[in-house]
Amino acid sequence: MAVLGIDLGGTKLLIGVFSESGELSYKEKADLENRQGAEVGAFITQKINALQTEWQQKGDRISAAGIAVPGIINPESGIVWAPNIPGWEAYPLLNELKQNCNSISITIDNDRSCSLLGEIWKGNARQCRNVIFLTIGTGIGAGIMANGNIINGAQGISGAIGWMALTTPFRDAYTSCGCFEQHASGEGIAKSARELLQSEKITTSLLSRIPLKDIKARHVFNAYSYGDPAAIKIIRQCIQYWGMATANLVSLLNPEKIIFGGGVFGPALQFLPEIIEEARQWAQPVSIKHTKFEPSALGNEACLYGAAHLALKNK
Amino acid sequence: MAVLGIDLGGTKLLIGVFSESGELSYKEKADLENRQGAEVGAFITQKINALQTEWQQKGDRISAAGIAVPGIINPESGIVWAPNIPGWEAYPLLNELKQNCNSISITIDNDRSCSLLGEIWKGNARQCRNVIFLTIGTGIGAGIMANGNIINGAQGISGAIGWMALTTPFRDAYTSCGCFEQHASGEGIAKSARELLQSEKITTSLLSRIPLKDIKARHVFNAYSYGDPAAIKIIRQCIQYWGMATANLVSLLNPEKIIFGGGVFGPALQFLPEIIEEARQWAQPVSIKHTKFEPSALGNEACLYGAAHLALKNK
Repeated sequence: MAVLGIDLGGTKLLIGVFSESGELSYKEKADLENRQGAEVGAFITQKINALQTEWQQKGDRISAAGIAVPGIINPESGIVWAPNIPGWEAYPLLNELKQNCNSISITIDNDRSCSLLGEIWKGNARQCRNVIFLTIGTGIGAGIMANGNIINGAQGISGAIGWMALTTPFRDAYTSCGCFEQHASGEGIAKSARELLQSEKITTSLLSRIPLKDIKARHVFNAYSYGDPAAIKIIRQCIQYWGMATANLVSLLNPEKIIFGGGVFGPALQFLPEIIEEARQWAQPVSIKHTKFEPSALGNEACLYGAAHLALKNK
Repeated sequence: MAVLGIDLGGTKLLIGVFSESGELSYKEKADLENRQGAEVGAFITQKINALQTEWQQKGDRISAAGIAVPGIINPESGIVWAPNIPGWEAYPLLNELKQNCNSISITIDNDRSCSLLGEIWKGNARQCRNVIFLTIGTGIGAGIMANGNIINGAQGISGAIGWMALTTPFRDAYTSCGCFEQHASGEGIAKSARELLQSEKITTSLLSRIPLKDIKARHVFNAYSYGDPAAIKIIRQCIQYWGMATANLVSLLNPEKIIFGGGVFGPALQFLPEIIEEARQWAQPVSIKHTKFEPSALGNEACLYGAAHLALKNK
C-alpha cells in the first residue's frame, strides 16, 4: 500500500509516493505550463491516475492522496480560492478529484497547515503540541498548532500573518498584500530594494547594476554578502519586522517552538540570532524565554510530507 | 448543590454562588485590604469555607469552586505568578486551596480564559468555536478559543496581547508592559495624556486642569466628550492601535467573533465602528468580512461566570 503527497504551487506540482510507513519512494516535479482553472484540476487528476496505474502494474496499490493547496479551502464544500492559480476563485477541487480519481481517498488542506504537518510528522516539530511554522517566501503564511490541534479558523483562513500590522501609519501598498508581507516577504524585499534605489537615487549600490524591474530578493541577499550598504539597510529593516512578527506569535500563542521556512529562510537563516534578539525586545518576556527557534528540517519538502501525512491519516 | 465562582483581582475578590443550573444566587465583593502573598491565599480559603458552612446550614452543599487568577498558572503544578499581587511570584495557590478547603473540588485558570469562558457559557460567545475575548482595562489580555478549544499555550501564557508589537521604532517604555499596552490600555491612555500635556506644553486642555499624576483614562474619555483636542488626539491614536490589534487577531486566527470587554470597553465601546473600520484597512480581507465584533454581554461579571463554569465542569 502507498499514498500520494501532492504540493500544488502557483506554477508547479510536486508529487511524492510514500510507503505506508512514511518513506518517500518516488518524487516528481511537474510544471503547470500556464494551465488555468479546470485545466489544473484535470492535470492533478491525470497525474494521480497515471501513478495509480503504474503502481498497480507493479502489484502495489495507491489508496489515498493528500493535496496541499496555496489558498483558502472551504472546510465544508472543499471549494478552493487560490489567488496564484488563475480561475481558482471558487474551484471545486475536492469534488473534481473525488469524481475523477477512482477508488482513492482524497484529502485537501492549505499549504500553511501542510508545511506544519510535515514538520510535526518528520521534521523539527515532532512531539510539539504548541508550535508555529512561519513560511516566508514570495508570500508569508503561518501554520499554527495549539493544544495539539491544527488551528484552521472559522473559514479555514487562519495563519494569514502576511497581513499583520506592524508599523504606522497605514500605507496604500498594504491593501493588496498586508503590511508584513509588503515589507518582509521575498517580493517585499525586492519591492523595498526598488523603492530605496528610486527614492534615494542610489547609483553606487551593487543593486543599481540590475534593471530595477528585475531585482529579486536573492540579489539583495547577494549584495548583502558583499557588504553593500543599500542591501544592509533593507535586510536590517526585514530583521526588525521578522523579529516583531515572531514576538507577536510568542506573546499571543505562547508556542514551545517557532520553525522558519520558505524560500527566504533559505538565505535569511543566517540572521536567526538577530531576529530572536529583536523578538526578545518586544515579546512577553516569560513566554519568549521558553520558546525555541529552529529552521525547517524538511525545507521545500515540508509541504509535500504534510500532504502525504494527510493521505496516510485517511488511507 | 451549588458551586462558587471567584474572580481574584489585584485589589479585590468577587465571589458568586451559582446553582447547578448556572443561576447566580448570591454575590459578594471583598477588598483584599493590602493583603500579600500567603495572606491572600488564606483570605480566599476563609471565604470559601465560610460560604460552605453557610450553605450547609441552609441544607445545601457547595461542591466546587473555580478561581480566576490575574496572572500565569503553571498547568502542572498550579503555581501562580501574578504581578499585581505582591508575593505571588510563585505562589502554590492550587495546593493551598486543596489542602485547606475540605470536600470541595478546586479549579484555577487565568482571568483571560475565564472571561472568555463566561461569554461562551452565558454571554455573546455562545455557540462559537473560534472566538476571542479582548480585555482592555488597566492592562490588556486576550482569551482565545480556536477549533472549539481554549488555547493556553505551552506555559499557560497565551493571550498576552498587551505585548503586541504595533509600531516602530522600539521604545524603552515597551520593556515593562509591551507596545500595545503602553499605547492603548487604560493605564496607557493616562500615560499618553501625561506625555502629550508635558511634551507639547498644552495648557488649554480640559486635562491640564487635573494634576498630571492624577490623570486617569476616564478623564480623557470625559474630556473627549467635550470635544477637547488633546483628548481627541489621544483617543484617535488608541482607535488606530485597537484596530490594528483587532486586525492582527483576525488575520492570524480567523475568528467568527471578537468580543470587547474590560474597564476601557466601557467608554470606548462608542468607538467600535471606527475600530472596525481601522481594522478593515489592515486585516486579511476575506477573513474580516466574516468576523463579528460585539461588546461583552456580562461586563465585569464575565470572569466571575467563567470561574463558576470551571467549577461546574469539575463539580
